Amino acid sequence: MVSVDEAQQMIMGRVVPLEAEEVDALTADGRVLAHVIQAPLNIPDVPKAAMDGYALRTDDGLKPRRIVAELTAGTAAGVSLEPGTAVRIMTGAPMPAGADAMLPVELAEEHAGWLTLHHTLQSGHHVHTVGQDAAQGATILPQGTVIGTPELGLLATFGLTRVQVYRRPRVAVLATGDEVIEPGLPRPAGAVYDSNRYALMAALREAGCEVLSLGIAPDDHAKQREALLYGLEAADVLVTSGGVSMGSRDLIKPLLAELGTVHFGRIAFKPGKPTTFATVGSKLAFGLPGYPVSSLVSCEVFVRPALRALQGDPHPWRPRVRVRLSTPIRPSHDRPEYQRVTIRQEGLHLVAGTTGGQGSSRLMSLLGANGLLLVPPGKAIYPVGTELDALLTASFVATKPA
Amino acid sequence: MVSVDEAQQMIMGRVVPLEAEEVDALTADGRVLAHVIQAPLNIPDVPKAAMDGYALRTDDGLKPRRIVAELTAGTAAGVSLEPGTAVRIMTGAPMPAGADAMLPVELAEEHAGWLTLHHTLQSGHHVHTVGQDAAQGATILPQGTVIGTPELGLLATFGLTRVQVYRRPRVAVLATGDEVIEPGLPRPAGAVYDSNRYALMAALREAGCEVLSLGIAPDDHAKQREALLYGLEAADVLVTSGGVSMGSRDLIKPLLAELGTVHFGRIAFKPGKPTTFATVGSKLAFGLPGYPVSSLVSCEVFVRPALRALQGDPHPWRPRVRVRLSTPIRPSHDRPEYQRVTIRQEGLHLVAGTTGGQGSSRLMSLLGANGLLLVPPGKAIYPVGTELDALLTASFVATKPA
Repeated sequence: MVSVDEAQQMIMGRVVPLEAEEVDALTADGRVLAHVIQAPLNIPDVPKAAMDGYALRTDDGLKPRRIVAELTAGTAAGVSLEPGTAVRIMTGAPMPAGADAMLPVELAEEHAGWLTLHHTLQSGHHVHTVGQDAAQGATILPQGTVIGTPELGLLATFGLTRVQVYRRPRVAVLATGDEVIEPGLPRPAGAVYDSNRYALMAALREAGCEVLSLGIAPDDHAKQREALLYGLEAADVLVTSGGVSMGSRDLIKPLLAELGTVHFGRIAFKPGKPTTFATVGSKLAFGLPGYPVSSLVSCEVFVRPALRALQGDPHPWRPRVRVRLSTPIRPSHDRPEYQRVTIRQEGLHLVAGTTGGQGSSRLMSLLGANGLLLVPPGKAIYPVGTELDALLTASFVATKPA
Repeated sequence: MVSVDEAQQMIMGRVVPLEAEEVDALTADGRVLAHVIQAPLNIPDVPKAAMDGYALRTDDGLKPRRIVAELTAGTAAGVSLEPGTAVRIMTGAPMPAGADAMLPVELAEEHAGWLTLHHTLQSGHHVHTVGQDAAQGATILPQGTVIGTPELGLLATFGLTRVQVYRRPRVAVLATGDEVIEPGLPRPAGAVYDSNRYALMAALREAGCEVLSLGIAPDDHAKQREALLYGLEAADVLVTSGGVSMGSRDLIKPLLAELGTVHFGRIAFKPGKPTTFATVGSKLAFGLPGYPVSSLVSCEVFVRPALRALQGDPHPWRPRVRVRLSTPIRPSHDRPEYQRVTIRQEGLHLVAGTTGGQGSSRLMSLLGANGLLLVPPGKAIYPVGTELDALLTASFVATKPA
């Protein structure tokens, strides 16, 4: 039996980011950059008007200027400003040669083609200078950047349409058990619909993976072996649910030992003690428990960080926050427990309350949960107000204040 | 000029959720339920063993039991337990008729086909009772539930493969401006690559929308009119960038007034004062400013909540949190400003620090930001320690503690 930390170290120590691939930069949101992006050009590339107004020469002082042209952002550069003249200019338009400042439209007085000034202007006033937003050659996005909306906007700003990103992990998911039935098919009394495979596939999609369903394998050595081999061939990572307990039909652990190396098969952890980790060549294999909550929580705590690291994310862990309990929490006697909680802000600090009964079969304990509370083992109930750590697995719920 | 609150009310008051559509339940993660889900069956549907062990009759007291069978989760129900007998049983297996409790394997002594007890058992001990996890007919997921991993697992648990969800909004995005060039094409000096359209499309995808690119329209009334009409025909919502200022080439506002009703065209808000909202029949149209930061922040504050509400999300707003400043913040003199900040936890409470220069053209101010700080207007710098509200636009950055 290993600790949670030991288990995570054993897993993460065997993760190597997948190879890079070139993709369309402008739809690469969610991907992780496999190379550094340096600005290929200055932004702006020429001096530009920062507001609507008049471009002029400050060395003309307070003399009235003759207005000789109107420049918009789309006007080709090439206009040159003679002494004693000014141009009407729109935000974003290139400044004409010779102009070194601009007067915002709301401070300007224009009459019969002449511009009158009441105050002297400083050179550079309201001019958006070359490289002010980004200097050519500067590092804009480091390797390992997760591409979100602003990052994608920056790539477009620089005219970059292709980028190298880490490949998304392909993850094969297998459900096991004679009693497990495909949702939608007739179900004999006592049999259960397969929820784990579909919930795991949703969790894996959220983690940025491509998923491959291996269906449901009955409790049969040959059939489970065939499914595992197919999954290990087709995918980077194999995830199974069920078949890792101590029962006579629990075949996954011996099968993983037969095909590769089992690194651990029990974790001092609740829910999900029998969670198993193996490698088969360069492939990672996770045997998750069959109880719905155990399977999802084990995936969150042990599988997800590995999948984020595989795609190059330098921050593969969920954010860890410190919370104050808003409900009492009953710990497990013997194992650290990851209890489902709702985390919200109260005043300036964060509080966490239970989502109700924490039974491993009770998937409803995950409804509305946006965190996993790290509950140290013990005999005594943790009272309201106790400070504990929690993983933030989703955002806070929002309500617009009145 | 309207206030931020007035603008949001004018928008949200015109949002009606889109119609429902039936989709595959098992890949519906991210969608919003358009109907209530009531449990169509009890979970579990028959009494089951909650652990590996022995099923027995408590009315046999402490007498040894003859072990007559082994039941696994996949064993068809129908076995009946006579007085004086027990069965070996695996987690999740239906309890045989007559059995009313189970003895966990670690407390059991089995020898030569007989089971010995040292303590009496209470009826129901370690039996997973009918409806314990979910009672048939109970409301499991209310209308308006955003389907995440556990919700999808629950749908599968009940064998549900089709659900009604609100249709995703289709959003058409148009960039405008003679100076705006498609990324990847040659760019004359002074021209800019179109980043707004691509960044907005990424933000709209993140908000759960289908996006439709209308490309770039030059500063030409007929061409912009044609693009707007096409977008309004093809999509539920139209979003444009640029062309809403006071310049002579700013054609979007007059065009929207010509085609429909402009509800506001200026907001006391920074960055994004000229943000414009119009309706054309039942379609919503947002004219966003051309500066990259203004366009994205206006989209976040005004467009995103409408898009979430259109797809039936009962919590369309970003979570609002209270933060303490970890860097000084310089306010705008005259308008509430939504400044880009990094929010993290320090001790128990949340702190926010600036991402640097907040110029509207400086897309880099959005890099690393996970929040928008609501900065009230004023002349004086807000010092470190000031408490302000912020919108949490992304999760905290995580680092695994050592």
